[in-house]
Amino acid sequence: MTLAQAVLAGERLALARLLTQVENDSDAGRAALNELYPHTGRAHLIGITGAPGTGKSSLVNQVALHFRKGTASRAPQRVAVIAVDPSSPFTGGAVLGDRVRMKDLAGDQGVFIRSMASRGSLGGLAQATAGMTQVFDAAGFDVILIETVGAGQSEVDIARLAHTTLVVEAPGLGDDIQAIKAGILEIADILVINKSDRPGVENTERALKTMLDLAHPTQKIFKHHGQYMSVSVDVDHDAALWIPPIQRTVATEGKGLPELLDALEKHRAHLKATGDWERRERARLEAELETLIQETLMARFRTTVSAAQLDEALDKLYRRKLSPHETVAQLLK
Amino acid sequence: MTLAQAVLAGERLALARLLTQVENDSDAGRAALNELYPHTGRAHLIGITGAPGTGKSSLVNQVALHFRKGTASRAPQRVAVIAVDPSSPFTGGAVLGDRVRMKDLAGDQGVFIRSMASRGSLGGLAQATAGMTQVFDAAGFDVILIETVGAGQSEVDIARLAHTTLVVEAPGLGDDIQAIKAGILEIADILVINKSDRPGVENTERALKTMLDLAHPTQKIFKHHGQYMSVSVDVDHDAALWIPPIQRTVATEGKGLPELLDALEKHRAHLKATGDWERRERARLEAELETLIQETLMARFRTTVSAAQLDEALDKLYRRKLSPHETVAQLLK
Repeated sequence: MTLAQAVLAGERLALARLLTQVENDSDAGRAALNELYPHTGRAHLIGITGAPGTGKSSLVNQVALHFRKGTASRAPQRVAVIAVDPSSPFTGGAVLGDRVRMKDLAGDQGVFIRSMASRGSLGGLAQATAGMTQVFDAAGFDVILIETVGAGQSEVDIARLAHTTLVVEAPGLGDDIQAIKAGILEIADILVINKSDRPGVENTERALKTMLDLAHPTQKIFKHHGQYMSVSVDVDHDAALWIPPIQRTVATEGKGLPELLDALEKHRAHLKATGDWERRERARLEAELETLIQETLMARFRTTVSAAQLDEALDKLYRRKLSPHETVAQLLK
Repeated sequence: MTLAQAVLAGERLALARLLTQVENDSDAGRAALNELYPHTGRAHLIGITGAPGTGKSSLVNQVALHFRKGTASRAPQRVAVIAVDPSSPFTGGAVLGDRVRMKDLAGDQGVFIRSMASRGSLGGLAQATAGMTQVFDAAGFDVILIETVGAGQSEVDIARLAHTTLVVEAPGLGDDIQAIKAGILEIADILVINKSDRPGVENTERALKTMLDLAHPTQKIFKHHGQYMSVSVDVDHDAALWIPPIQRTVATEGKGLPELLDALEKHRAHLKATGDWERRERARLEAELETLIQETLMARFRTTVSAAQLDEALDKLYRRKLSPHETVAQLLK
């Protein structure tokens, strides 16, 4: 039995081993990904991003727990969590994270949690995350939660992996922190105000609403007989339009979680109904392809140039004998 | 006169034009970079990074002003500022930033400020920053301040451009925010607690000291006759060792700035004395070369494959006929 076959058969140890192979981008990992790929395409990929201090990790745990439980209208789901932490390039924080999480979800065979610290390039991180997502998807996990830290281009890149992106805020983190999120807000499908029992929750919600209104206007203003009039856009009757809902939660007490899960399900249905599911999937695969092509070209290049040649080129560059562009031209000749 | 010659002659308009060419990675920009490259290698590159809310931009302005002023022991320096904002991939924040900054530094020919919003890939951003740095360096700017936002891999990558990296903190931003900085701390050459007139400054300094001690132990613990003993490492007498100093500032009032500039000068002298200046320069050029090779290989690849071929490949990928790795192998055949 190949590693991929063992994963398809539901063996957890094989799954853990394969995830390591994929993270290390080994030949065995690549072969297994090829074998598993036809079995992918069913899971709902949910990106969860938010600054430190928003209680994002607790929220991820609670979302996982609630998907596991199921309700009258929703069967229990198998849930995988991929925690990506590109902000700790030097620390082994990922391991500790795993241990803390295990408390809530330990022993449940329908949950699998995997943390990843940044190794090497951000492209490498996105590629490893994409590979792991495929492994979980093929292994029959219904929901894959991809947790990323903070704001920035890295989060935008990794959010592109997801069908649904959830942006977590919390009251009292300061106006500046809200401001920086303006960019991140535009990738949000659902906004969560966690720690919503804290003072300042009204301000946070107002700020988010203002930003949402700018991004997704629900009032149209027009001129009629020389006067400005406004008219509401009837969002509920425009199925193609998704206005990100704002959900309040207190993850540590499980408050607001059923409503959040409903919103997640609603977004999934919306994506399926409008064809956005397919569009996002295609965009994601295109981005993954681009990263892979880049890595492959670089690997090939490294086989054509010796270490001595590279050192010599670097030396000329350092001594200002050749410019960076001239050095590249010489190396690629 | 070429654009590069005009820049070498000190023409500000030519400088502004060339920076745009470099940002757009145009052929003219590349040609000018080749021409200017032999004139580079003198400027002190200082990276300044910190989360929103730390008052980092005000601090950058003040550092620029103080370098301009000069003192009894230091001649006035020409200062360039490159403000990199990868966290706003969607907004035009860069333009507003420029205007706000102009208030303090307007009319001074010895200062040049340039903001850059994220365009496309992070690699592209790092590449553009490297190119701009070379332009300013060749144009005779003595100090180049590279300002980046927040924590994360992107900041680490851009910090690699600098000789000296300054990490800005502020009191009262929350423990979680401190925690996420653990990784960023390890790239810090100088730590600044800005807004140090705020309550909580002692806590922030204590937290930073604790983290510094973990990263750079000044006490060694050993076992002697069954008992644990500790001994201090004499930092002052080990010239090769640089322990990041913690500097308190209130940028809005100019407080602590002379001391911060002294620390910056001291770090520069340290780099020169230990050979670290050369080592960092080589590492930086190596990273730049890698990025350029990657971009060049991708550009070449795009000329070998038609849009129709790419679409067909993507379609097979989407329909799970070929895995990502198999698709890459086919496209690169």
